[in-house]
Amino acid sequence: MQIQFPLTTLVAVAALAVYVWLAMWVGKVRGKYGVVAPSEDGPPEFRRIFRAHMNTLEQIVLFLPALAMFAMAWGDQIAAVIGAFWPVGRVMYGLAYAKAAEKRGPGFGLSFLSASILLLGALAGAIMTLVEKAPS
Amino acid sequence: MQIQFPLTTLVAVAALAVYVWLAMWVGKVRGKYGVVAPSEDGPPEFRRIFRAHMNTLEQIVLFLPALAMFAMAWGDQIAAVIGAFWPVGRVMYGLAYAKAAEKRGPGFGLSFLSASILLLGALAGAIMTLVEKAPS
Amino acid sequence: MQIQFPLTTLVAVAALAVYVWLAMWVGKVRGKYGVVAPSEDGPPEFRRIFRAHMNTLEQIVLFLPALAMFAMAWGDQIAAVIGAFWPVGRVMYGLAYAKAAEKRGPGFGLSFLSASILLLGALAGAIMTLVEKAPS
Repeated sequence: MQIQFPLTTLVAVAALAVYVWLAMWVGKVRGKYGVVAPSEDGPPEFRRIFRAHMNTLEQIVLFLPALAMFAMAWGDQIAAVIGAFWPVGRVMYGLAYAKAAEKRGPGFGLSFLSASILLLGALAGAIMTLVEKAPS
Repeated sequence: MQIQFPLTTLVAVAALAVYVWLAMWVGKVRGKYGVVAPSEDGPPEFRRIFRAHMNTLEQIVLFLPALAMFAMAWGDQIAAVIGAFWPVGRVMYGLAYAKAAEKRGPGFGLSFLSASILLLGALAGAIMTLVEKAPS
Repeated sequence: MQIQFPLTTLVAVAALAVYVWLAMWVGKVRGKYGVVAPSEDGPPEFRRIFRAHMNTLEQIVLFLPALAMFAMAWGDQIAAVIGAFWPVGRVMYGLAYAKAAEKRGPGFGLSFLSASILLLGALAGAIMTLVEKAPS
């Protein structure tokens, strides 16, 4: 058993675990506040968890490809170090959003910063590869 | 033409095809029940198809990365065998949800079980790689 | 620095940049029309940007895996050429949807065509690999 990006895989699994945790939390508050599927409408307590999960869906779609592309360009360790802030930021985000919508900023910012650095790093890696390959 | 994970690719294509099928179904029931974009609101018959698609979006974001990471750790064949239950479960889910929300459990469970095994397998693969690499 | 798919990576980064642009636009119109989270409801001007972003989320979940699988089967250059139409179509889609819902067709069609060709190409690559591997 030798996979190429074990630390990055750990971070990706952690990100997906946070995502599943939020999905399960939505299921739980559906029961608690009597929001029966296929409705998405309910009291603010429900809506905040629902939106925390949806926003995490929106952001994981950016994070995971950026993480994978960054790891291919810059290696497993640095990808994992930068990427590790994403699940941390998302746990902060979910817990804060559940309390009050206006508290969700820091967790969002931390995870978005992580994803943005990964995306810009992937871009830099692609450009550097193309420059090196270009006939001089 | 030699790709590394042909069977896993077939399963991923099948999963995406089920996902596109549900998206097209939403378009169709938009017409049928007169739910004009950008609205997402309509009769329960529309809402159930809409939510079946949305939930499949939520779940495919978990499934595809887990499938890819599992295949890299454990190989093409076993990834494809476990992953193949996902699109099957999602077809069951979509057809059942269209009839009644409370019938959607088994299809959800089957696809979630498939994705969970893949995710745990990816985690195990990462840990085993790190343990083997560690200096003894 | 030598990554395997630099042109495809550029296209993927462009697609994710368009996606982030739409997410930021949603944030901006939340402020403009006073749609306070966790609400998703507001005037049609808000709803159209919101839906443009959501639909792009739905579609990027199809596009990125199809792009990656196609690149692995058919190489970096052809994947990037076909994939480049996706972010172009999505910019068209977002700008048109913001003006009027019924103008969103062409941008949707262009990006969906791009993703569909990539998905079918990935399918063809998987089948050709399996046929070549089969004992004769």
